[in-house]
Amino acid sequence: MPTVTLEDARRVIAAAEKKADEIGQPMNIAVVDSGGNLVAHVRQDGAWIGSVNISINKAWTSRAFDITTKDLGDNSQPTQQFFGIHTTNGGKVAIFAGGIPLSRDGEVVGAVGVSGGSGEQDHSVAEAGAAAF
Amino acid sequence: MPTVTLEDARRVIAAAEKKADEIGQPMNIAVVDSGGNLVAHVRQDGAWIGSVNISINKAWTSRAFDITTKDLGDNSQPTQQFFGIHTTNGGKVAIFAGGIPLSRDGEVVGAVGVSGGSGEQDHSVAEAGAAAF
Amino acid sequence: MPTVTLEDARRVIAAAEKKADEIGQPMNIAVVDSGGNLVAHVRQDGAWIGSVNISINKAWTSRAFDITTKDLGDNSQPTQQFFGIHTTNGGKVAIFAGGIPLSRDGEVVGAVGVSGGSGEQDHSVAEAGAAAF
Amino acid sequence: MPTVTLEDARRVIAAAEKKADEIGQPMNIAVVDSGGNLVAHVRQDGAWIGSVNISINKAWTSRAFDITTKDLGDNSQPTQQFFGIHTTNGGKVAIFAGGIPLSRDGEVVGAVGVSGGSGEQDHSVAEAGAAAF
Repeated sequence: MPTVTLEDARRVIAAAEKKADEIGQPMNIAVVDSGGNLVAHVRQDGAWIGSVNISINKAWTSRAFDITTKDLGDNSQPTQQFFGIHTTNGGKVAIFAGGIPLSRDGEVVGAVGVSGGSGEQDHSVAEAGAAAF
Repeated sequence: MPTVTLEDARRVIAAAEKKADEIGQPMNIAVVDSGGNLVAHVRQDGAWIGSVNISINKAWTSRAFDITTKDLGDNSQPTQQFFGIHTTNGGKVAIFAGGIPLSRDGEVVGAVGVSGGSGEQDHSVAEAGAAAF
Repeated sequence: MPTVTLEDARRVIAAAEKKADEIGQPMNIAVVDSGGNLVAHVRQDGAWIGSVNISINKAWTSRAFDITTKDLGDNSQPTQQFFGIHTTNGGKVAIFAGGIPLSRDGEVVGAVGVSGGSGEQDHSVAEAGAAAF
Repeated sequence: MPTVTLEDARRVIAAAEKKADEIGQPMNIAVVDSGGNLVAHVRQDGAWIGSVNISINKAWTSRAFDITTKDLGDNSQPTQQFFGIHTTNGGKVAIFAGGIPLSRDGEVVGAVGVSGGSGEQDHSVAEAGAAAF
């Protein structure tokens, strides 16, 4: 069995889409598995095209470091311990809110990444998605 | 109205998944809009992780040049008129079967890209997806 | 438990190194896990520095498509069904001999990649590594 | 004789692994030679996959500029003399703690890079590795 099945990813995305609809902000939503590889992505009608890669990168980042991109961002500001991490890994590291790890039995097995609104909106939509995992 | 709505993309992907299930080969399936930007992607359980990007690139390529990647490939072999095109555009140009334009009223408005099996399998799954557009 | 532990990777690398020593050709040897992510790499003294990335890419490729890079290469020559695949995925796809999937209970869970000699030498060293998995 | 032999690299890595085990934080550890080219890398079980490249980049950076990445980081903050250096060299320059040069007879001949924990943890594990050189 894969760590995050396509069915899992669709459930996470559906919950995230519902939240995005509620707050009225179209979003890009991506889910990756334990290896950081994409399982599924959707761009809601009207969502920013520049956010396609950002949603995928946020999901990758959250799995790659087992942390929300919001918390990673706090540690990646100038003078903080991880400042500069955003230019590693070929530009795949996202350091602003919207990526959240997906855990099963206390272990991170994947992640969801959301991009299309404010940092607060992206994070809340990702939370709604993660809660459905 | 977007040129390819998320609902359109989901219908194309569902038809492609059905075909992939029938031939018993798990696939990556991607749909892009008229701007070549990703609308949706799925990786079926067990499909190759190396095919995530290839499916997206096949879709982008088919919209970027309004041609199937199979036909573009025929023109991109050594000594043919487009040989070398696969290294342009940052490596996004795919020159093997699996990408098919999506048309409406005689105009290309997007594309579907499939990767996960032989060239013949990828193309037939993409055809099933395109037929549902 | 990870799919390929560091202990597994070291056992594979040790067997590959032994084979490389026997044939007198210093090698780069890399092992990736089920997500295609690097577990361990060694460059034997005197091995080509240009082969560092090639060994890692061969391992990634073999896991990404569940195939030896030798077989993938046969299908990726001009006019063959996958010609052009080597420029996808940011240049990570290697299409010459030296990458072999690592399987457990009939399922590919990682791969070994070897680079530093002729294609035949690379493949035989990778085979020795894979046999120790 | 290579500047940093594989045997050297393994001794450095073993010492670094011992330290990582003591502090209970799984790490990626990489060693490069005088040319900045990778000699060996290990990812301990459970260490972040996003840290594979960072460990290699920290090692490269420490050799490329003959400085710890911690000290380079101090000089690379906004308003400091090297601010912006992290986006040069194709993203290979790491400007946060964890990379330490390896010296012999007063000359830098290689470097070790560590990534997987806090900046302080990464640096202390790299120090343990460097001390074994």
